[in-house]
Amino acid sequence: MPLAVRFRALGGPDVLSVDEVDTPEPGPGEVRIRTRALALNRADVMFRTGTHFFEPRFPQATGLEAAGTVDAVGPDVAGLAVGDRVSVVPAFAVPDYPLHGELVLAPARAVVKHPDRLSWEEAAALWMAYATAYGGLVDIAGLRAGDVVVVSAASSSVGLAALQIAAMIGATPIALSRTSDKRDELLAAGASAVIATGEEDLRGRLADITGGAGVDVVFDPVGGPLLSEVAEAAAEYATIVIYGALSDSPTTLPVLALLQHRLTLRGYDVVEVVGDDTRLARAVAFINHGITTGALRPTVDRTFALSAIADAYTYLESNAQVGKVVITMPQTDTT
Amino acid sequence: MPLAVRFRALGGPDVLSVDEVDTPEPGPGEVRIRTRALALNRADVMFRTGTHFFEPRFPQATGLEAAGTVDAVGPDVAGLAVGDRVSVVPAFAVPDYPLHGELVLAPARAVVKHPDRLSWEEAAALWMAYATAYGGLVDIAGLRAGDVVVVSAASSSVGLAALQIAAMIGATPIALSRTSDKRDELLAAGASAVIATGEEDLRGRLADITGGAGVDVVFDPVGGPLLSEVAEAAAEYATIVIYGALSDSPTTLPVLALLQHRLTLRGYDVVEVVGDDTRLARAVAFINHGITTGALRPTVDRTFALSAIADAYTYLESNAQVGKVVITMPQTDTT
Repeated sequence: MPLAVRFRALGGPDVLSVDEVDTPEPGPGEVRIRTRALALNRADVMFRTGTHFFEPRFPQATGLEAAGTVDAVGPDVAGLAVGDRVSVVPAFAVPDYPLHGELVLAPARAVVKHPDRLSWEEAAALWMAYATAYGGLVDIAGLRAGDVVVVSAASSSVGLAALQIAAMIGATPIALSRTSDKRDELLAAGASAVIATGEEDLRGRLADITGGAGVDVVFDPVGGPLLSEVAEAAAEYATIVIYGALSDSPTTLPVLALLQHRLTLRGYDVVEVVGDDTRLARAVAFINHGITTGALRPTVDRTFALSAIADAYTYLESNAQVGKVVITMPQTDTT
Repeated sequence: MPLAVRFRALGGPDVLSVDEVDTPEPGPGEVRIRTRALALNRADVMFRTGTHFFEPRFPQATGLEAAGTVDAVGPDVAGLAVGDRVSVVPAFAVPDYPLHGELVLAPARAVVKHPDRLSWEEAAALWMAYATAYGGLVDIAGLRAGDVVVVSAASSSVGLAALQIAAMIGATPIALSRTSDKRDELLAAGASAVIATGEEDLRGRLADITGGAGVDVVFDPVGGPLLSEVAEAAAEYATIVIYGALSDSPTTLPVLALLQHRLTLRGYDVVEVVGDDTRLARAVAFINHGITTGALRPTVDRTFALSAIADAYTYLESNAQVGKVVITMPQTDTT
């Protein structure tokens, strides 16, 4: 019987177990995937700790990101065949299609044939980060060549994807990070400049870098006091895309900067883009193009075996990584 | 010699005087207007009290809004002739074209032939309020028939114009006012409902009125704690247009509502719309159409004589009015 990651109580990584489960049969519009790599996501952590919108039902399977080969195809599925090398775009609710197992179901509309040059680990790490960054920067903010874009939480997997996407477009990505520890990795990922917000004068640095012209786009999952500082350094008609609320401090709306620079603030999550067929198709085309040309390449920080799934989450939750934490699956057939 | 309103020191209404001045000659692209009514604006108050962006140079002429007849036409002006009944769109900086005088210059691009059915007082009161409300609701937010729109500070001249414009489009305007004192006037101006924010449960009322579906557009010059409450009552993809910062309290950004409802917040001032020829032409066409059909009609609260200009400002600054405070000019030719 195939293995799957499940949990029977809310809690830390130690509530996770790797269980033998039945082989699922794909229904209409579904495919079954034999996974080759699984990527870990903070939404999985929220689901397991009971802070996610969705409530678990025990024993609860989990997992948002995976890559592998198509193992079976359900009715009413076009364009996918057994043996295809695929990865899954997170275009559905976590409980509907838990992906962290050896043989898992996914909705065909979210299953993508990614470019061959990606390893399985890279393919598993691809979609959540790149679809989120693409959606915020390109679909929502309309980022263009020549724009200056500030990426906060830049060493997260979404942040790294945003730096690469901005550089691919011809924009100038500026990475914000709390300390300067990850400066080299951020420059390597495509950042034109790195500002350590805990050590440097953010407004002064942004004014220097833009020659006083200001920042065109801000891509921020943090909020808090940082947001006002960035807003004051914004160019006229700049767009601030907010895709999270990581800050512990309340976020004061920078009303005067908003009025003076005619700013747009926009709340955003990836489901807005990947939940719509037309926008999803554009996202996939853009990202696959970037992968093919080499402009985009997922950053895998570290890999673990499936049996070490708890260790993998403990590492993820330590925030020491730059990029994705990935599970490499064995290549044996166990059905 | 013609009269003009000027001030020689920063301060309250008592620093204003009505002085004899030289008759100005229109330069290229300018017209001279013999004014028949002048409307008072808060930006005039800010300019006189030294809280405006522009610094006065004494003796400083002032005045943002006026209507009258074209008295002379400078070179390079098309479409305007002596005798035309016109009013002036506030599409320039206050110090460049002070309008509160008997004979004043205005840039031809901002001079509009308004529909005949308006009195001079109504015409003078028209453009600042209606161009601001049109720009925020239609040009920026894309308000459509069937939308529910919340208008805060609804008894201001911009608020009243917003209620009328929303009703003209077929949207449902909900007026917010601190107390219920002005309820009747707000219903008469076109509000579908009035919520007294100091007396009623704002979120509960908005949920009732929209049947839980939420508010599509918010048009707000206030900020402060109110904004979070309105944001939480917003529909998915709602737009909050912020065009002022009247609140004394800091405005907390409603990050969770922003994310949950995928909201857009937009800082806006009327110059964005009236400073662009194409958008200005659309604004003028929309507003003149509304005036012609009777859907729009400026609200004149009270008129004063030019000699009582200080009294008129004292009344404006008391905030007792619903709509515009206007100066009626004598009809004699004094050049």
